[in-house]
Amino acid sequence: MELLSENRSFGGRQQVWRHASSTCNCDMTFGAYLPPQAEERPVPVLWYLSGLTCTHENAMTKGGFQEHAARHGVAVLFPDTSPRGEGVADDPAYDMGQGAGFYLNATEDPWKPHFRMYDYIVTELRALVLDNLPLRNRHGITGHSMGGHGALTIALRNPDLFESLSAFAPIAHPTTSDWGRKQLTGYLGADEASWRNHDATLLANERGWKSDILIDQGAKDQFLNLLKPEALAAALTQNRIPSTFRMQAGYDHSYFFVNSFAGDHVAWHAARLNRE
Amino acid sequence: MELLSENRSFGGRQQVWRHASSTCNCDMTFGAYLPPQAEERPVPVLWYLSGLTCTHENAMTKGGFQEHAARHGVAVLFPDTSPRGEGVADDPAYDMGQGAGFYLNATEDPWKPHFRMYDYIVTELRALVLDNLPLRNRHGITGHSMGGHGALTIALRNPDLFESLSAFAPIAHPTTSDWGRKQLTGYLGADEASWRNHDATLLANERGWKSDILIDQGAKDQFLNLLKPEALAAALTQNRIPSTFRMQAGYDHSYFFVNSFAGDHVAWHAARLNRE
Repeated sequence: MELLSENRSFGGRQQVWRHASSTCNCDMTFGAYLPPQAEERPVPVLWYLSGLTCTHENAMTKGGFQEHAARHGVAVLFPDTSPRGEGVADDPAYDMGQGAGFYLNATEDPWKPHFRMYDYIVTELRALVLDNLPLRNRHGITGHSMGGHGALTIALRNPDLFESLSAFAPIAHPTTSDWGRKQLTGYLGADEASWRNHDATLLANERGWKSDILIDQGAKDQFLNLLKPEALAAALTQNRIPSTFRMQAGYDHSYFFVNSFAGDHVAWHAARLNRE
Repeated sequence: MELLSENRSFGGRQQVWRHASSTCNCDMTFGAYLPPQAEERPVPVLWYLSGLTCTHENAMTKGGFQEHAARHGVAVLFPDTSPRGEGVADDPAYDMGQGAGFYLNATEDPWKPHFRMYDYIVTELRALVLDNLPLRNRHGITGHSMGGHGALTIALRNPDLFESLSAFAPIAHPTTSDWGRKQLTGYLGADEASWRNHDATLLANERGWKSDILIDQGAKDQFLNLLKPEALAAALTQNRIPSTFRMQAGYDHSYFFVNSFAGDHVAWHAARLNRE
């Protein structure tokens, strides 16, 4: 791992790291916020998965997580949203290819040599940060939009790896949305059976969740028709999954929305991750 | 004034406005955060002046002021750092011309037709926002780097207009710095007598300040040699000006630094602006 930058932030360290990824077959970059408590002892970690068009940097500079992470003694990881580079396949659309990995392992050409964000997050990056940063092996996960989809689908499929789960305006039912069907077809092929592991609503219906889930969704989000929060809300309630689903009056899809509730999410994860 | 965007943020409104400026002879853009309290009654206002290369947007998205402004019931204004547009003079250097107005009124060509940021802030924009936004006529002012220079010089010259004053890593003594001598020569001419109104250290020595001043400066700031905080600290102490000057261990010049102390500054201004 090569340290690209480090800035003091709320008494801790906002770092950016680059490493050669054997999963994605390219260099990958991620941000890591280490709170002041990490100078003394390993701290639990909250994963924040970003949305379409984002890199590791957007939430790191605009999400406002550091203040709350410092208060609660939790690290925050900001992975990139896809493999990148000249040798990596891409698509001119903003919602496919680089910046739009959808947190799955592609099985179709031209994507399959690099687009393996699911394994990258669940296996490679997880092991890398546990080996190299002062982290406890206790993980929460959240994310925004496509990253909310990633957080939900990754956690629901791996309940042993994550203690706590939340999302901001997640793509909640991609198998029925234009934010989903195109990408699942492209990355995974036309057989919709292979899509089921990548839809939070379907996974909630099939697998439930071991503890509780926090979801925030702006009531004035300009992408409500693509996100389909009603499908996930129905799955949570019909399956009696302990959860708090908040439709937030007046909020849109922007980082102003994420920032406004970042403190609530960090506190929520910290309460669960710091529990002995 | 034309509203370009509005996002809900911490229960309030993060707005971006554009207007034709008669002072700068071009369209100007600024951000305005209105806290939830502004729905019920006019609120005091904190001006945040940005640094070199910034627009109205940087601090609005990366500074983290909204959370604290909402808590304390204070509006925050984010003006641009210079006139802009095709008809406006510019310089290829990052520290001169567009994005680098230095909060003065240029008297030299090619700058004088547009570069009048001092009058723009003190007179035109002040009147415009008081007429059009739910603001009380109670003002605090702060800023970062070149914007810290702007906040200090504008307030020290206009003690009747500002109740409270702070700065983040200000350009503290530009008449002796490479961040200053080039720009003051270009905008104001070679006669250094005309520069004295645009140097916080000289103004503090000559005029003092009516109340107290808060300054935060990163001890690992990569631009310490250009900012010259020691000159301002000496002026504050030699002139017995009530002040808190904090050299913050480990912090650099970035928005991670500004963000880390935004809450302290908003609280500090709010305590003074909300005093009856």
